[in-house]
Amino acid sequence: MRVDLNADMGESFGPWKMGDDAALLRTVTSANIACGGHAGDADVMAATMTLAHDNNVGIGTHPGFMDLAGFGRNRMSVPRGTLQNQIRYQVAASIGMARSVGAKVRHLKLHGALANMASEDPILARDLYEAALSVDPDLIVMILAETAQQQAVKELGCAWAGEIFADRAYNDNATLVDRSLAGAVIHDPAIAGARMVEMVKAGAIITESGKHIPAAIDTICLHGDTPTAVQIAQSVRAALEAAGITVQTFEGRR
Amino acid sequence: MRVDLNADMGESFGPWKMGDDAALLRTVTSANIACGGHAGDADVMAATMTLAHDNNVGIGTHPGFMDLAGFGRNRMSVPRGTLQNQIRYQVAASIGMARSVGAKVRHLKLHGALANMASEDPILARDLYEAALSVDPDLIVMILAETAQQQAVKELGCAWAGEIFADRAYNDNATLVDRSLAGAVIHDPAIAGARMVEMVKAGAIITESGKHIPAAIDTICLHGDTPTAVQIAQSVRAALEAAGITVQTFEGRR
Amino acid sequence: MRVDLNADMGESFGPWKMGDDAALLRTVTSANIACGGHAGDADVMAATMTLAHDNNVGIGTHPGFMDLAGFGRNRMSVPRGTLQNQIRYQVAASIGMARSVGAKVRHLKLHGALANMASEDPILARDLYEAALSVDPDLIVMILAETAQQQAVKELGCAWAGEIFADRAYNDNATLVDRSLAGAVIHDPAIAGARMVEMVKAGAIITESGKHIPAAIDTICLHGDTPTAVQIAQSVRAALEAAGITVQTFEGRR
Amino acid sequence: MRVDLNADMGESFGPWKMGDDAALLRTVTSANIACGGHAGDADVMAATMTLAHDNNVGIGTHPGFMDLAGFGRNRMSVPRGTLQNQIRYQVAASIGMARSVGAKVRHLKLHGALANMASEDPILARDLYEAALSVDPDLIVMILAETAQQQAVKELGCAWAGEIFADRAYNDNATLVDRSLAGAVIHDPAIAGARMVEMVKAGAIITESGKHIPAAIDTICLHGDTPTAVQIAQSVRAALEAAGITVQTFEGRR
Repeated sequence: MRVDLNADMGESFGPWKMGDDAALLRTVTSANIACGGHAGDADVMAATMTLAHDNNVGIGTHPGFMDLAGFGRNRMSVPRGTLQNQIRYQVAASIGMARSVGAKVRHLKLHGALANMASEDPILARDLYEAALSVDPDLIVMILAETAQQQAVKELGCAWAGEIFADRAYNDNATLVDRSLAGAVIHDPAIAGARMVEMVKAGAIITESGKHIPAAIDTICLHGDTPTAVQIAQSVRAALEAAGITVQTFEGRR
Repeated sequence: MRVDLNADMGESFGPWKMGDDAALLRTVTSANIACGGHAGDADVMAATMTLAHDNNVGIGTHPGFMDLAGFGRNRMSVPRGTLQNQIRYQVAASIGMARSVGAKVRHLKLHGALANMASEDPILARDLYEAALSVDPDLIVMILAETAQQQAVKELGCAWAGEIFADRAYNDNATLVDRSLAGAVIHDPAIAGARMVEMVKAGAIITESGKHIPAAIDTICLHGDTPTAVQIAQSVRAALEAAGITVQTFEGRR
Repeated sequence: MRVDLNADMGESFGPWKMGDDAALLRTVTSANIACGGHAGDADVMAATMTLAHDNNVGIGTHPGFMDLAGFGRNRMSVPRGTLQNQIRYQVAASIGMARSVGAKVRHLKLHGALANMASEDPILARDLYEAALSVDPDLIVMILAETAQQQAVKELGCAWAGEIFADRAYNDNATLVDRSLAGAVIHDPAIAGARMVEMVKAGAIITESGKHIPAAIDTICLHGDTPTAVQIAQSVRAALEAAGITVQTFEGRR
Repeated sequence: MRVDLNADMGESFGPWKMGDDAALLRTVTSANIACGGHAGDADVMAATMTLAHDNNVGIGTHPGFMDLAGFGRNRMSVPRGTLQNQIRYQVAASIGMARSVGAKVRHLKLHGALANMASEDPILARDLYEAALSVDPDLIVMILAETAQQQAVKELGCAWAGEIFADRAYNDNATLVDRSLAGAVIHDPAIAGARMVEMVKAGAIITESGKHIPAAIDTICLHGDTPTAVQIAQSVRAALEAAGITVQTFEGRR
């Protein structure tokens, strides 16, 4: 029994720092590294990829809407073909930058509002993944388990890995409980660890009501930009290892 | 006897168009395609690369200072390491975007103020070329013949190609006559054509005073954004062909 | 009987030119000048405002989504408070820049996707107008006649002016005929001129079916970025004047 | 005997935070607030101006090179007229944004590389100040005492205020000791406080060698983005007040 731990990283920009990437990179096994669309710049990308590589952490490209001021969190009605080219551009920048520091991009994960939209719309998800795969057909696509993103990778037949959240409660239809509701976000590192052990062992998303939704749980998403991010990451990892679950970079499935 | 014709392209951005790339692509044999730093966006890159590929025109990455508003024409005191990463980023984006449209980047040419600075400073030139080659060691570096750029590629031992200008007069030390002086820029397509034939045959830059400076003339730079750009390009090509010189994509030399 | 003619202007950016502002400024009586959000930069703003002022053309601030690459045409889910501050910022920049060249901003017109959204949502329209008026309470708000924008200015009690399009056909509910339908856009300068005379005389929007919708027609929108923009503008102006209608900068109504 | 304390503020951008403005605003009497060129966005400007106003802190516009990624720290060869328009744009945005939150901009201070260049070049300084004053002739120009900036304001005849640094050592020609040299930057809050008392009482810059250079010391610059920024600010204020010097927003001199 094994699972990967992933977190968003490389989200600093110019003089502005975000998150404690060095600390997270000692805990996670995959890093989703911003590529200039919503965050990250050439220096940040090079430094973060180098550090991830040195820590044997799998490197992912993490494209989103090209909106630095909005951090990729605004939904935008960008024409589909333009959006595909923007994904190609960001993925391409990631791949070549990784090569220049002696590393390699192995997975793709969509960011922010674009990820949310793709989790609701399988055609959008497929269009975006196709764009990314046109740059590198060997990318493993990290998808939110049991969403439209999963439908897209199955239709494409590409390598993929399923993801669940360490710190978010689930509804009975596998969507996330709205952030405005009590209990939607799990802040307690110990609780986050315990429920991840439970879900990985069950091979299922366990909802707020206790329902089990069988799911492909290849990786667990840890958030990197909250005050307790590093603590939750360490607690989840410790809990998994204590339960005999190997924490290791995921392999793609088809 | 053969020579390549190159021009800058893909310099539109968002809703704004620049140059008549389609017309130029019927005349030149190499295209220096902007990669998002000084101009170009993901759509423009994809479209221009596709069109160049369809016309059997060699594709080059054309990085510069990351200053859209200034079109890369402002000199900037960007720290060296940051500048190298910005070159890596732009070159990487070009290479992956080309791959996604079934094409390939074969050469590198620096843009604007950064090119000017590199033609004066061999250490800067070498640092930038090294950064680009760290993304793809097979890139052929297009250099301004008889400048510090040439010194840099010789030190690096990489593949390179020497370039002269179709429409600029030269001083006796192989630098360009200052634009503010009469005769610095050649506007007459017929004259531009005739002097290119003369220089290619002589294997030398011929200065305003008539001095011959032996030079590696692998490619001729045609400007793409002037009103007479397409006319000059066509005139130069016709003159070369009439003189029995083959117009063909360059090979790199070492 | 009088009417104003307005057009969007100052939509160049850096090295990229858009539209023939000098020609339009000889025909229109109000100019909606971009302020750095979707287009325009400091040089373009200063030059366009100076030229408008010299031509006795009324100057308007023309804010939109802050998305240069998308020219403000993408709808974006920017948080309301942020959007209001972005409007304040753009309006402020316009007002101060006008002052620095000896001119004055007298009206406000929303741009692109933001204008479309505000024409459908009176609360959004009011929030945006309030933000603009917090910078200068004397701004005259130019609104699309018979849309939610009109409802907003009436609720606010601010000075306003109603606008119709010279080159767009109307549905019976006063919305524009979808661009994908035949006849939606009027390309013939003569037809554009004739129907404007008819509508101004009738004091009503005349729909495709011939229905008259009484409307506050203070100004006619001419598009500036189409190949025939200048021709249509001149034709509309000539037709209005031939019909005895004075073409003159609008006054605000309440 | 009185003096003002100023610090740069509002240098966050989008999701990225910089400095502890709230803490600084309880100590300083003037705030130099970024206006979108090197840092700051519409939300940050509105929030910082509101907070400064609520703390009775004088508000300054703080324009620089328009280079977010480089934080305005790169020298750029922007054409003079463009640079002047960019100053007008930023100053205009500041003034209107302040008005929209019920506040007022009273002073101007140049930022980063542009400030450094203006302290060396009196013609550049004058051109930039003239641009700013064309938006609002009542702005008080904050200048680095005994530099080319001071020469510029004297030539212009505008209102101005002289500034010294709390945490930088001075050479005998009134320039700053190079940061690479030992002792160039004062990190000890107690030392910073003591030397400010000494200089304000002396009405002179006291150099490393002990030389006194009589200077117009109207305000003391405290840096906002260092780990000890708030401590140094508090220490300087406490030392001044203990020495009987009133800490109060400056008046302009001519």
